[in-house]
Amino acid sequence: MSKILTVGTVAFDEIMTPFGETGKILGGSASYISMAAKKMTEQVGIISVIGHDFPSDFLQKFIDRDIDISGIEKLDNEKTFYWKGKYHNDLNKRDTLVTEVNCLAHFKPVVPDAYKDAEFLMLGNLHPAIQQSVIDQMTTRPKLIALDTMNFWMDTAWDDLMTVLKNIDILIINDEEARQLSKDYSLVRAAKTIQAMGPKYLIIKKGEHGALLFHGKNIFFAPALPLEDVFDPTGAGDTFAGGFIGKLAQLEDISFNAMKNAVICGSNLASFTVEEFGTKRLESLTKPEIKERLQDFIHLTQFEIELV
Amino acid sequence: MSKILTVGTVAFDEIMTPFGETGKILGGSASYISMAAKKMTEQVGIISVIGHDFPSDFLQKFIDRDIDISGIEKLDNEKTFYWKGKYHNDLNKRDTLVTEVNCLAHFKPVVPDAYKDAEFLMLGNLHPAIQQSVIDQMTTRPKLIALDTMNFWMDTAWDDLMTVLKNIDILIINDEEARQLSKDYSLVRAAKTIQAMGPKYLIIKKGEHGALLFHGKNIFFAPALPLEDVFDPTGAGDTFAGGFIGKLAQLEDISFNAMKNAVICGSNLASFTVEEFGTKRLESLTKPEIKERLQDFIHLTQFEIELV
Repeated sequence: MSKILTVGTVAFDEIMTPFGETGKILGGSASYISMAAKKMTEQVGIISVIGHDFPSDFLQKFIDRDIDISGIEKLDNEKTFYWKGKYHNDLNKRDTLVTEVNCLAHFKPVVPDAYKDAEFLMLGNLHPAIQQSVIDQMTTRPKLIALDTMNFWMDTAWDDLMTVLKNIDILIINDEEARQLSKDYSLVRAAKTIQAMGPKYLIIKKGEHGALLFHGKNIFFAPALPLEDVFDPTGAGDTFAGGFIGKLAQLEDISFNAMKNAVICGSNLASFTVEEFGTKRLESLTKPEIKERLQDFIHLTQFEIELV
Repeated sequence: MSKILTVGTVAFDEIMTPFGETGKILGGSASYISMAAKKMTEQVGIISVIGHDFPSDFLQKFIDRDIDISGIEKLDNEKTFYWKGKYHNDLNKRDTLVTEVNCLAHFKPVVPDAYKDAEFLMLGNLHPAIQQSVIDQMTTRPKLIALDTMNFWMDTAWDDLMTVLKNIDILIINDEEARQLSKDYSLVRAAKTIQAMGPKYLIIKKGEHGALLFHGKNIFFAPALPLEDVFDPTGAGDTFAGGFIGKLAQLEDISFNAMKNAVICGSNLASFTVEEFGTKRLESLTKPEIKERLQDFIHLTQFEIELV
């Protein structure tokens, strides 16, 4: 099993849904990515930044799961990144109520020596120049570099984004982001445009409508598991990315066929994350539960047909 | 191969999309259903009604394809049902500009003797009491009765709809209709509620996001084929239904596994219909083209995974 390095936020989230609201709970892309990846593989390390107000019992959640937090820097004069959001009744839309960037404004990721040769690098949503700075610190080129980004960086840091896209292997974004990045409504045409920007592979996440994996002319589709209730969608996309990269690290294989498995695995883990607030379900999730739900995905999607 | 009887509209459509507009072309649920079903199986008959203004070359399209139109009644004092609609730029929404019910107001379906023993009955979207009147005329209970309906009948003919739902096997509707019928946003819960109304099977069509097949606790999902361009979505849902029922008639099998195949087949045919205006693509579609695209569906959805 290969080593994974993930770079992203470790933060406070405060979430309001029709089912209730949380206080400040553990959030951030690197939290979901690392916990999901760790379900699949052994060595997972985080690079992130926190403030003086970050509780030790939140850090303990990573330590308890044997996730390497030696790359999490604590800034004593800053507060932790904080996001507060409220979901609409159908849970498909949300409004951001508060974003306090805090310590993240001073984030200069330093790759620990032990991770400069990581085989898998997962760059969570951050300024593209910061994402590039992590790539530049790797002493050996990772087998696979995956990157997430968002509309905000397309609006404010286009040139930096174009630079980092040339240096990665797979971009993992949602449908709205793919449309903005490509300036094309058709996701199939968007995928061609985006692959021409650099990444040879592209995953377009469509939330409850599943995810598409593109590579040249090959397309694979993984549905989201149809659920009776979605309790809190926060972190589903990052869980998907973590499960995806974790499965590839477990398989030590980055072929298109391995990526099919990895997409299903990401969708599987994401289906758990939405069952409870924040990282709660991911924290309690066991391997037998994952395996059992994988059977649901097989029943949901696999068929035998005669070509007549 | 089993006999299929389909009941629905044979009509004029006039369609405006960002790519152009048609004059009055052949439309109507029974047109799409029968043409799609006929790609899969041999004996397909239509029950419908047309007016004096319906051109003989439109009827000839059915005759050329060996679709039995002995059940299409012509009303000499009425005009043909006419619908005009305009699609928005993303083709996901449309506005109805004109609906002229015309001859459809006088539609009293009469099942020809040769179809009173049809094994498969596909009831296109019509007043539920009219749909029920067709069921009542069958001398032997069909192996499978499938039904489409719409929000309008839920608003205006609820009791009649509840009656006919008790007498069918499978309901084929879209997500919005499923939510209105069940009064539930969650499609998984909606499926339970709707199955309790009568149909043991339920298909929920999600347009470009594919279709879900429900039966008790079993769920199967067929994606829509990701396409570079959708030219005209009109008739995609009816094509899906026709392909679905046509495949079951071909297989002479109504097991859940056969229905998986049939859902994929419906999705396959629908992916062609949206490539040109109206029934045009369906008219020219060949069996080798269908078979080739079925391979695309297999590549899109099938994977091999180890349960570890």
